[in-house]
Amino acid sequence: MKKRVSLKDIAKEAGVSIATVSYVLSKQNNTGISREVTERIKRIAAELNYRPNQIAKSLQSGKSHTIGLIVADISNPFFALIARIVEDEAKKHGYTVIFGSSDEKASKSADLIKFLLNRQVDGFIIAPAEGSKDQIEYLKAQNVPLVLIDRYFPKLETNYVVIENYLASFEATGRLLANGNNRIGMVAYATEMQHMQERIRGYRDALAQDGISDTFVHEIKFSAIQSEVEGAVDQMLNMNDPVDAIFFATNTLGIIGLKYLNRLKVSIPKDVSVIVFDESEAFDFFYCPLTYVKQPLHDMAKKAVEVLVEQIADPNKGFHKIKLGAKLVLGDSCA
Amino acid sequence: MKKRVSLKDIAKEAGVSIATVSYVLSKQNNTGISREVTERIKRIAAELNYRPNQIAKSLQSGKSHTIGLIVADISNPFFALIARIVEDEAKKHGYTVIFGSSDEKASKSADLIKFLLNRQVDGFIIAPAEGSKDQIEYLKAQNVPLVLIDRYFPKLETNYVVIENYLASFEATGRLLANGNNRIGMVAYATEMQHMQERIRGYRDALAQDGISDTFVHEIKFSAIQSEVEGAVDQMLNMNDPVDAIFFATNTLGIIGLKYLNRLKVSIPKDVSVIVFDESEAFDFFYCPLTYVKQPLHDMAKKAVEVLVEQIADPNKGFHKIKLGAKLVLGDSCA
Repeated sequence: MKKRVSLKDIAKEAGVSIATVSYVLSKQNNTGISREVTERIKRIAAELNYRPNQIAKSLQSGKSHTIGLIVADISNPFFALIARIVEDEAKKHGYTVIFGSSDEKASKSADLIKFLLNRQVDGFIIAPAEGSKDQIEYLKAQNVPLVLIDRYFPKLETNYVVIENYLASFEATGRLLANGNNRIGMVAYATEMQHMQERIRGYRDALAQDGISDTFVHEIKFSAIQSEVEGAVDQMLNMNDPVDAIFFATNTLGIIGLKYLNRLKVSIPKDVSVIVFDESEAFDFFYCPLTYVKQPLHDMAKKAVEVLVEQIADPNKGFHKIKLGAKLVLGDSCA
Repeated sequence: MKKRVSLKDIAKEAGVSIATVSYVLSKQNNTGISREVTERIKRIAAELNYRPNQIAKSLQSGKSHTIGLIVADISNPFFALIARIVEDEAKKHGYTVIFGSSDEKASKSADLIKFLLNRQVDGFIIAPAEGSKDQIEYLKAQNVPLVLIDRYFPKLETNYVVIENYLASFEATGRLLANGNNRIGMVAYATEMQHMQERIRGYRDALAQDGISDTFVHEIKFSAIQSEVEGAVDQMLNMNDPVDAIFFATNTLGIIGLKYLNRLKVSIPKDVSVIVFDESEAFDFFYCPLTYVKQPLHDMAKKAVEVLVEQIADPNKGFHKIKLGAKLVLGDSCA
């Protein structure tokens, strides 16, 4: 394969500056460049089979009709599904979506934002990773339209579309209590991110309201999910007075936990009650229909696209701060 | 929010052409532009809070250290996982990955390729949609490094990393035959794409080799997967002489089929044997451990990145045509 032809190659061949080539090939009027030079450049570009580039144009119009979507982990069905819905909704508005996945790392998120920003996406939908607050502040300072999804930074004025994590968690824990459980463990992530902290707070407040002071929160590191979830389950089941219920704070934590409970031959709900925050295709095959918190994924993704498209069209609009309710779907997994 | 500052704004303010601004701000030496004008442009750009743009640089160097990955459907765990592994592997080589999802539509794939190409990705990894052959040919003609993954076009000379679909399907069908089944149905997609046709051919040849002429292939349209899979299952079970085994050609088809068999209270493997091409997290919760074709996802994604990075570094290298073996994992789902 041959090397790709660059503006530099054409400039060299034509004996003019790269800027002149760029100017001529981006087809501006009134360039002040002579007709003779203009035609020479065009001829050489054609001879060298130069691929015309839309970048110069979008640099000027500022519109690429493309949205950058950055999720925390594309291999998580929760985000893969959000990506798919954002794609479908964006298409209705005439936008193409380009994704990146930050792997919950601020450094990776920074690389993606930089690339997409420099490639002139019209705006961003971002499920921010921990530690990426300054990146969002930077985008704001640069007047780049953006909507946060699933997570947000409470002290930062931005558009966001999230769910009522505190209320959903409070309700789920309340359900475990109402069904007679009173030693309830929680498996969550170790992160300062507000959505997770709200889920933990909802759990604690529900217990406190029932006068229960024994809380068992296990915070799992992203870097060692499987071993830490299994360790947490072991610990909760092997206490002198073991838990009678476990609340898993995400689908990933839930699936790993349920697989491990299966391996331990712990029967749900006979031996222990379970609620999972979030749903999963896998739950459909679980022997006991699960009680789980159903997030309004479709509404969340749809709203995020609508808010973004609106802001791209009218950058002076105020911020949309949207919190959607989640629904507790009752199965048979909490006795 | 304020409008983003463009080169045009700066040019207007400085009373010079856009090309001159672009040239100055991309920090070229020997621009032939006077020191006075250069400094005026820089001062105005700073005053207007202009965001420096890397595009001009990558236009010249031709390297963005970014790979474009286009999959068929990001909400399918098969592709979400490939995306995640490509991401991890690319990172090891210093590349960022930007994804797009074609939704199995050639038109959407064309939009994504156009956007990413114009934004100077260094190369592509593509799981091509049906009807996108001319897009791949175009990229080839433009000397853009690319690797096809999961699917390829047999008559097109390109890099590809796929699996031995024919052999894997032949082996899976052979297993159903060896276990005493002889009325075996197959649920596949209606597509001309070679990977699916090879799976169907493997099934047919395995039956033919055993002297069985009754084949039952149901080809499902992407636009109506659920209803057509259920219809196919109904038809196969309600024949005068019903099937004794069903071979699902992908994980999506398998999950929908298994859910439906559950609803019908058809017991596996007692009432019907099942093999699925591909794995799924959901299978871990199915009451009967499944026999399935395990694709070497990790190897496939890793190889694709290696081949692409190699071609970016040395565009004159010959094509890599890699077919990896798949493994039949034996569960208890075929009697």
